[in-house]
Amino acid sequence: MYNQNISKETKLLSALRERMRELGIDAFVMPSNDPHFSEYTAKHWKARSRFSGFTGSAGMMAITAREAALWVDSRYYVQAERQLAGSAIEMIKLGAGGGERIDETWLKERLPAGAKVGVDGRLFSVARYESMKKALAPLELACATEGDIFDGVWTDRPALPHEAAYLLPESVTGKCRREKLAELERAADGDVYIVSALDEIAWLLNMRGGDVNCNPVAIAYLVANCEGTHLFIAPGKLSQDDCLSLQSDGVRLHDYADFEGFVASIDGSRTVKINRGKLSVRTYELLVSAGVGIEEEEDRCGAAASMKAVKNATELEGFRRCMITDGVAMLRFARWLTENVGVRKIGESDAADKLLELRSAGRDFRGLSFPTIAGYRANAALPHYSARAGEDSELRAEGFFLVDSGGQYLTGTTDLTRTFHLGTPSDEEMMDYTLVLKGMIGLSSVRFPKNTRGAQLDLAARRFLWEHGKNYLHGTGHGVGHFLNVHEGPQSIRAEENPVALRPGMVVSNEPAVYVAGKYGIRIENLLACQYDCSTDFGDFYSFETLTLCPIETKAVDFELMTQEEIKWLNKYHKRVYDALAPELNAEERGFLELMCRELAGR
Amino acid sequence: MYNQNISKETKLLSALRERMRELGIDAFVMPSNDPHFSEYTAKHWKARSRFSGFTGSAGMMAITAREAALWVDSRYYVQAERQLAGSAIEMIKLGAGGGERIDETWLKERLPAGAKVGVDGRLFSVARYESMKKALAPLELACATEGDIFDGVWTDRPALPHEAAYLLPESVTGKCRREKLAELERAADGDVYIVSALDEIAWLLNMRGGDVNCNPVAIAYLVANCEGTHLFIAPGKLSQDDCLSLQSDGVRLHDYADFEGFVASIDGSRTVKINRGKLSVRTYELLVSAGVGIEEEEDRCGAAASMKAVKNATELEGFRRCMITDGVAMLRFARWLTENVGVRKIGESDAADKLLELRSAGRDFRGLSFPTIAGYRANAALPHYSARAGEDSELRAEGFFLVDSGGQYLTGTTDLTRTFHLGTPSDEEMMDYTLVLKGMIGLSSVRFPKNTRGAQLDLAARRFLWEHGKNYLHGTGHGVGHFLNVHEGPQSIRAEENPVALRPGMVVSNEPAVYVAGKYGIRIENLLACQYDCSTDFGDFYSFETLTLCPIETKAVDFELMTQEEIKWLNKYHKRVYDALAPELNAEERGFLELMCRELAGR
Repeated sequence: MYNQNISKETKLLSALRERMRELGIDAFVMPSNDPHFSEYTAKHWKARSRFSGFTGSAGMMAITAREAALWVDSRYYVQAERQLAGSAIEMIKLGAGGGERIDETWLKERLPAGAKVGVDGRLFSVARYESMKKALAPLELACATEGDIFDGVWTDRPALPHEAAYLLPESVTGKCRREKLAELERAADGDVYIVSALDEIAWLLNMRGGDVNCNPVAIAYLVANCEGTHLFIAPGKLSQDDCLSLQSDGVRLHDYADFEGFVASIDGSRTVKINRGKLSVRTYELLVSAGVGIEEEEDRCGAAASMKAVKNATELEGFRRCMITDGVAMLRFARWLTENVGVRKIGESDAADKLLELRSAGRDFRGLSFPTIAGYRANAALPHYSARAGEDSELRAEGFFLVDSGGQYLTGTTDLTRTFHLGTPSDEEMMDYTLVLKGMIGLSSVRFPKNTRGAQLDLAARRFLWEHGKNYLHGTGHGVGHFLNVHEGPQSIRAEENPVALRPGMVVSNEPAVYVAGKYGIRIENLLACQYDCSTDFGDFYSFETLTLCPIETKAVDFELMTQEEIKWLNKYHKRVYDALAPELNAEERGFLELMCRELAGR
Repeated sequence: MYNQNISKETKLLSALRERMRELGIDAFVMPSNDPHFSEYTAKHWKARSRFSGFTGSAGMMAITAREAALWVDSRYYVQAERQLAGSAIEMIKLGAGGGERIDETWLKERLPAGAKVGVDGRLFSVARYESMKKALAPLELACATEGDIFDGVWTDRPALPHEAAYLLPESVTGKCRREKLAELERAADGDVYIVSALDEIAWLLNMRGGDVNCNPVAIAYLVANCEGTHLFIAPGKLSQDDCLSLQSDGVRLHDYADFEGFVASIDGSRTVKINRGKLSVRTYELLVSAGVGIEEEEDRCGAAASMKAVKNATELEGFRRCMITDGVAMLRFARWLTENVGVRKIGESDAADKLLELRSAGRDFRGLSFPTIAGYRANAALPHYSARAGEDSELRAEGFFLVDSGGQYLTGTTDLTRTFHLGTPSDEEMMDYTLVLKGMIGLSSVRFPKNTRGAQLDLAARRFLWEHGKNYLHGTGHGVGHFLNVHEGPQSIRAEENPVALRPGMVVSNEPAVYVAGKYGIRIENLLACQYDCSTDFGDFYSFETLTLCPIETKAVDFELMTQEEIKWLNKYHKRVYDALAPELNAEERGFLELMCRELAGR
């Protein structure tokens, strides 16, 4: 079975090389993303996976007439080595901050100056394409073909997904699409504006879909302010009623396949506002051919993303509502763990299944917001661990069990992590757990002036770990969509500079952690909403509202390390959680909640 | 007297306009800096001050045939309004983050497309020139003349300063110039390297001078790796012996006036490594004319600045030594204050004079590192307050008195701020003082991983103030030179992003503050040295060594707001200060020190 796969991939590579010869290109570079630069992609676009056999979410491949290489970051060293074993594809490790890139010198060492390197221009943003072009010199970079390079090559290519898309009422979104589109028009300031990001289109149109796993979006393009708004989406995805609704709001519908033709025919007298990081080089070249004026967007992250990031009152209210439903599921899950671990045989994937079952019973539940991470002991110390039934660990009455999961609800998106201790924590475990908790509380409680960026606040979550020579090598917080992608920009809270300031209405995660290789991983995560706090002689100040409503395990807390303020925060939080969840529970569950939320006196 | 000045300035402006007509330029833009982009400039280069009458350190002026405008930031609104009163120069206020710039639309509104705007190319870095060129379009920007536009115009122009320069022994600098120049050569990687910054030249050659107020530098240029190292300095500044020493280390001496001619004659086959932020556009144009290859320096802040910022063991030991001398002077000053305020008539400037007198008695003292800021009560809330004898406030036995001062010593540079309370502090005063102190202690005590940037640590100094809706609108920390400029790059600790990570050996100030307009200003400042702390499974961690040795006023501390850890820090610091200063003092002074450093129990 395994070997069969490899030979199939080799056949695919041979066919691709044949096509490369026909097109006159000496190398082809394949990224992992789709034409919408999505985090999760449909199988139709998993070319890099299919042609290499490596299924990780990031890792670029370069193919020459004789060789092929795949660059992977540290998360995927083990997996890539296993999946590439026996293939003729060389695995190359990227250092720290790896991500998705190639080392251009690999190609430069193998090809003569002037050799032609091709890419699918739909999969490269203008910014990425230009930086690669620069790095590849004296090799030449070009879009391989106007058509699809895989036509006739990738014969078993999955079709584009065709799940139904649907519109959301204003009672859920808090703002009608007319208003959102008018806002976008104002930002475009008379210029044509092209939106490729699926979550931005979903947000702008109050539309959701089912084309992408965990992200409730539909595959589409949107062109605004071009004698109206134009939506490019496969016919039949939207109901007749929804089509009429969109049309009555001034949205003209086109087939998804007609997007490029439309762009190519934009009137040359128009100016198009583009975002180099979000527009494909293929679209860009079509615009250049059309002879339109091209202007760079001032908002580095894009007007639609910036608008979407600031949640309105209805969206925030929706978040608050679904947090109760989500908290109830997690509370039931915690109770189930307590009652079953050590009694019955439970694997990590059984626990994840149980949690999904409990979530599925919740009001307005629409699926997971990302694949659940359920890591027992040492497994939780592996970045991006994913438990697979049959290969996973069995939970016993000892050690830490980390569960990072979230749901899509009609009213919002959740993402929470709790780390349970299934036995009696050791001193080291208690110390680490407490430092992580202190950081989570520290960031939750911080007050800060207007115009503060995430990098300025990151210390609040890390300083206790740093004090003890510990750290976690990922960000502290990412933006979260409203019944949309669980990861969204432009804001973040992390060490790396991000010029975007936090604004009231932005939702971010707060997830400090510590990972001890071979032993355990601890992470505690709540979602926060940035809120206006007060105005003083020193200007406006903001703070965070904690949205997540779920008890925090206190068994592993070393109260000697907690300040009175931190214990007060914890008690206040648990009181809030109790008050919110108790009415939804039966007597036994309420008893369990009471126990988890009981007031603690501290040292 | 005042009116006379104005008419003189008007004459100067008329003469300048006449010259502009001769040169065919429609406008002339004048910055405040010198050709070395120094913070403090010699009078020879204070053209903007002389032609406008405004003496502030920042503020650019633009002159057309009929009009003139000066852009000032909020620090200088009052002063500029006063100094420009009655002149024909319009004062224009810059908003937040003002600094040194013009609003290009002012010129665009007054001049037709294609009109010529001139500048002195020696006073504009390549980066600033290019960004202004872009902003001025459709006006044209050019260097006004190859010569000096002020020749024959500014008839009473002061000559270039001609103070003696001298070499420092390796016992002071810890590294010989041969080694430093070899390091620079390695960084230049075969390319010619031009150094314009006076403190970088001083550091590279272990040379100091007296040409600039408070900055012990000599006016010079240096060109490295151009068949040797070339120093351009006015003849006679260095002694015969020092000239021989430099020559024996491979440094060729040229007249300062010959720099441009030398640059113009660099062999066209060479490549010059340039830093767009530190090279003047005049020098750049000479290089272009010479036909040399031009390469951008990778190190954004410049190789010499990066090398200089990391102090070696000898430099750090020197800092530690001069901190004792400086601490003794401050201790005597504090005692003098206690004994004299309310007893004799003392003005702010008397206090500053007294402090200078006490410092002057210290070992290896070489002058002030910046003009002393001595601000009583509301005066301390004015940014950049400078007490002038006769116009200053009298110190009474009440309220806060802020003293920010520092010395140049042969072994290092100091910069410390103490805020004394001369009476009985109010609750509000105690709260504010304590929040500032907590921030100062917070940053002093932070431990952080390698590769941490200042912006990530800024919160440690601000969070207590933020918690109470307070803030200070300046950075928390700047780099400090070793017997060199009190402000140096490239590192900083401030809200604004600066990509430079802190490295062991870097010296930074730690100066949180709070300013209550019309009432008082509080600032507490120590100098810190970044130091290696420990290595763990999570990598290398750094922390700070506090260099400054001077008691911190505790009269205004509200111990209710202090944690046990903070009180412990304070007691430990005071014990260190006592042990270091006591041996240098007489019995009475020691008694006073003992009182200031007494152990505090806290709440």
